[in-house]
Amino acid sequence: MTTLYGYFRSSAAYRVRIALNLKGLAYEQAPVNLVAGEQRSKENLARQPQGLVPSLVTEDGRVLNQSLAICEYLDETHPEPALLPSDAAGRARVRALAQLVACEIHPLDNLRVLKYLVGELGVDEDAKLTWYRHWIAEGFSALEAQLSREAGSGDFCHGDTPTLADLCLVPQVFNAERFACDLSAYPAIQRITGNCRALPAFQQAAPETQPDAH
Amino acid sequence: MTTLYGYFRSSAAYRVRIALNLKGLAYEQAPVNLVAGEQRSKENLARQPQGLVPSLVTEDGRVLNQSLAICEYLDETHPEPALLPSDAAGRARVRALAQLVACEIHPLDNLRVLKYLVGELGVDEDAKLTWYRHWIAEGFSALEAQLSREAGSGDFCHGDTPTLADLCLVPQVFNAERFACDLSAYPAIQRITGNCRALPAFQQAAPETQPDAH
Repeated sequence: MTTLYGYFRSSAAYRVRIALNLKGLAYEQAPVNLVAGEQRSKENLARQPQGLVPSLVTEDGRVLNQSLAICEYLDETHPEPALLPSDAAGRARVRALAQLVACEIHPLDNLRVLKYLVGELGVDEDAKLTWYRHWIAEGFSALEAQLSREAGSGDFCHGDTPTLADLCLVPQVFNAERFACDLSAYPAIQRITGNCRALPAFQQAAPETQPDAH
Repeated sequence: MTTLYGYFRSSAAYRVRIALNLKGLAYEQAPVNLVAGEQRSKENLARQPQGLVPSLVTEDGRVLNQSLAICEYLDETHPEPALLPSDAAGRARVRALAQLVACEIHPLDNLRVLKYLVGELGVDEDAKLTWYRHWIAEGFSALEAQLSREAGSGDFCHGDTPTLADLCLVPQVFNAERFACDLSAYPAIQRITGNCRALPAFQQAAPETQPDAH
């Protein structure tokens, strides 16, 4: 059985859950409690030397790391339904939208970074929240501009079926809502997120419905 | 003519320069001076709503953003020499190594983030340097573990030809050296970087040899 090592609130694990669900793949979950520090355990470091989640262990024992790499692997090994468009330009657009979230927003608002701000830099709660919301606003403003003005957008980030970009968008919106970010300036993001959330694959991947949710 | 909007010291632009050189593609460079704030110009925001570099404008006028998406586009449209292995598992490993740099190290040590630390959070020079080196050490320790223990490693991050992973590694090592990070604990990273730097495609992409170097 395919096993996903993740955490209910990890947005990187959330992306992989959506991909697995869209592909209709069966998997079991092995929670790694990030708040309890289980990502630094010997077992997790053996799978993921950086001490992060998610890792996906395939049926044949292959250990895969990094959520976007995992999702592309799933897309290549289980092509239907496709998570990337069939044309190179479309794939470039989808990957760029996904990376806008995965390289420009999420890394800055990650748990380990927030911990460093508070612990090593002595940043107070207000300044931490301001930091969090700043990077959401920076990224979402750009994403909104692209989604609202580019011809590639449709019911979803690219066209009318979910792609890798939507897999990144929805967990990031979940995080933004959790930190009470004002999303009123992002109607395209909200519209597409709503369309995603209407799909069972996204609903069943949501943090609050995971076995380790607490 | 293909045009690369970049900056000599941007490690994301550096990745794309290496890819273009490995593919043997002709391109002209249009520098966007990040220190002078040109990334926030109307022209750059029209190409790249987030106000970042690089963007690649193709011969047919297509605007591509996000360095990894650009490199994959180049690999798909100009398959030789390949920047990704021919097997799905190999591709997953290379993408994961690339993303370890591009999603876990680089975003935290980016110019805009260092500016926020100093400006908004009032972090002093010492603490800024400690931050910088902390994320390099976190990421490089994990990368070193993977490169030194995994069978996929060779003369380069994956096998004996450069891949997307090396395109990310070398610019990150350049940054680490610039900030005087101690790299003695990372022999595999150093060995592979040395092999990359022996190749003209990497040499000609190096920041100090770019037209806008200053």
